Amino acid sequence: MNSVNIRDIARMCGVGVSTVSRAINNHPDINPETKEKILQCIADNNYIPNNSARNLKRQESRVIAVLIKGLTNTFLIEMIQLLEKEIKRHGYAMALERVHFDQDEVDIALELVKEKRLRGIIFLGGDFENRVSKLKELDVPFILSTAGSQPEDISEDEYSSVSVADMEEGYKMTEYLIKNGHKRIAMISAKTDDESIGKLRLRGYKKALEDNGITFDPELVMFMRPDIEDYSMENGYEVTKQFLAKKVPFTALFAVSDTLALGAIRAFYEAGIKVPDDVSLVGFDGVEAGKFSCPALTTMGQPVKEMAKETVDILFGIIDGHGAHKHKICQAHLVERESVRKLN
Amino acid sequence: MNSVNIRDIARMCGVGVSTVSRAINNHPDINPETKEKILQCIADNNYIPNNSARNLKRQESRVIAVLIKGLTNTFLIEMIQLLEKEIKRHGYAMALERVHFDQDEVDIALELVKEKRLRGIIFLGGDFENRVSKLKELDVPFILSTAGSQPEDISEDEYSSVSVADMEEGYKMTEYLIKNGHKRIAMISAKTDDESIGKLRLRGYKKALEDNGITFDPELVMFMRPDIEDYSMENGYEVTKQFLAKKVPFTALFAVSDTLALGAIRAFYEAGIKVPDDVSLVGFDGVEAGKFSCPALTTMGQPVKEMAKETVDILFGIIDGHGAHKHKICQAHLVERESVRKLN
Repeated sequence: MNSVNIRDIARMCGVGVSTVSRAINNHPDINPETKEKILQCIADNNYIPNNSARNLKRQESRVIAVLIKGLTNTFLIEMIQLLEKEIKRHGYAMALERVHFDQDEVDIALELVKEKRLRGIIFLGGDFENRVSKLKELDVPFILSTAGSQPEDISEDEYSSVSVADMEEGYKMTEYLIKNGHKRIAMISAKTDDESIGKLRLRGYKKALEDNGITFDPELVMFMRPDIEDYSMENGYEVTKQFLAKKVPFTALFAVSDTLALGAIRAFYEAGIKVPDDVSLVGFDGVEAGKFSCPALTTMGQPVKEMAKETVDILFGIIDGHGAHKHKICQAHLVERESVRKLN
Repeated sequence: MNSVNIRDIARMCGVGVSTVSRAINNHPDINPETKEKILQCIADNNYIPNNSARNLKRQESRVIAVLIKGLTNTFLIEMIQLLEKEIKRHGYAMALERVHFDQDEVDIALELVKEKRLRGIIFLGGDFENRVSKLKELDVPFILSTAGSQPEDISEDEYSSVSVADMEEGYKMTEYLIKNGHKRIAMISAKTDDESIGKLRLRGYKKALEDNGITFDPELVMFMRPDIEDYSMENGYEVTKQFLAKKVPFTALFAVSDTLALGAIRAFYEAGIKVPDDVSLVGFDGVEAGKFSCPALTTMGQPVKEMAKETVDILFGIIDGHGAHKHKICQAHLVERESVRKLN
């Protein structure tokens, strides 16, 4: 793992070992540009400061836990890789913890804190409404990353978050379809009892219809099935198949995640419905697989690199004690590919 | 996390707490059926024995590290989820450690052993040739899971492994195409310097051609690009695009992984080549995404559940001291879907 050591990093950056040490330890007495250069060099060389030696001195580990719900949502997998890179840039190691869908991530975090000496926790995805009293029990810095639904009964200066504006982006995606002449727009939303991301995107969809004088038709809204893994291709496939059986007329489908949209493409394919000739389709997230599907998927891309960087930077700001809690909203961007047809 | 405790498990299984404890600790004095029932109940209820309390008593942690290379190969992601379930069935927790492609997994394992009190290590994927002296330094039980290329200069009773017979399965996959009338069979293999799984499947391909009187044509073999992540859709897409530009005639393509095959479908789509009407295509692994591609992908399915169970069972056999080193070869199975056409 450590083919390079701290002396190699110092030599490569043309600085002394103590300067590298200051960069790693977020010491204030260092030129910001020098620090950035050193952290980049550390990341490029996969250098990880020797925890064992450091722990003896500092009596604390250099580990950030990332809690992730599910592994079928490709978007979160992509986020993990970027978070790991950013965490390493700060000279820490990432501990990845899986959370099952029927488990409470805050309970798991509380257990982890007891068992491991963590310096911080990143909650990747998930729904934090009604979890406030538990979040307050966490005595290590944490951040909610890509969490659509923020806890409502906790003060904004008691926690940090990074997300996209799910309602606004859902609005933009729907409006894009409307501008392409679509009025009968079906939607695959989250589960009916979901209070997070899925629901916010659905709210944006409804608002866009309303603002454009299109009556909302509840028959056009599908919900993820609770008996199949959330945000999986299989879920998108099954709900679309059921929807098609009802013969409700529609010209476009907006799925709240790319993985759901990819499952929908398969359901259309089996039914002999061509995308985009017969039906237009859009997803949300901007995962790699959407580039390679046939047709390639038009989607609302989440700025994963920026989100990963902001998540880790805000968290280390709190850890180092010089940063306040922040709520960063990143901008998603429309990625036009091949799955939407303009209606006349 | 622990909504149920050991008393709940005992009650549900109709046994005493001490029996549950014996099952968890692999105590020999327990009826095997009762043990299986208890471990299943533990898994079904996501019950995790209380590590903290146990550690005080046993002076050791109940953690198994899983080292995985890359996160773009969907097959390995599916394996992680199953390994985690099996590890939990034994009352242990899984620590997932990512290894970058340019890092040596054995080095990382040696570092981990120093820093954490691990009871065992599972190497998921990877190539272990020429790593023998290092593997011998590991002083915790380990197993190579889905590792195609076994280390040659280490005795078989010094380590354990679980894999499919990559050469034989590559042979079967190629023979299936030959039986469907294909003679000009292109292949996407691993990188040219790869000594593991990819190369073994290529060897099987060559042997099948030879046994069926078809001359091997090196022009039909593509190699993954070293500048793009291994076994990614992007890699499959790019090499297929380059291959098509050379205008080498072929009627079928065998990709050594499903993810590579999914990238190839996209390259065919862009070139106006229809699968399977114009070209037949097969993958290897049996990942979920292959069920939902258009057309659905014919592949050689790896028995992931069996492989995960064998991996964990063999490892715990060694940990508990009553198992010898084993080398389990699992059977892959042909999954016929829509991507192969029979030639006349």
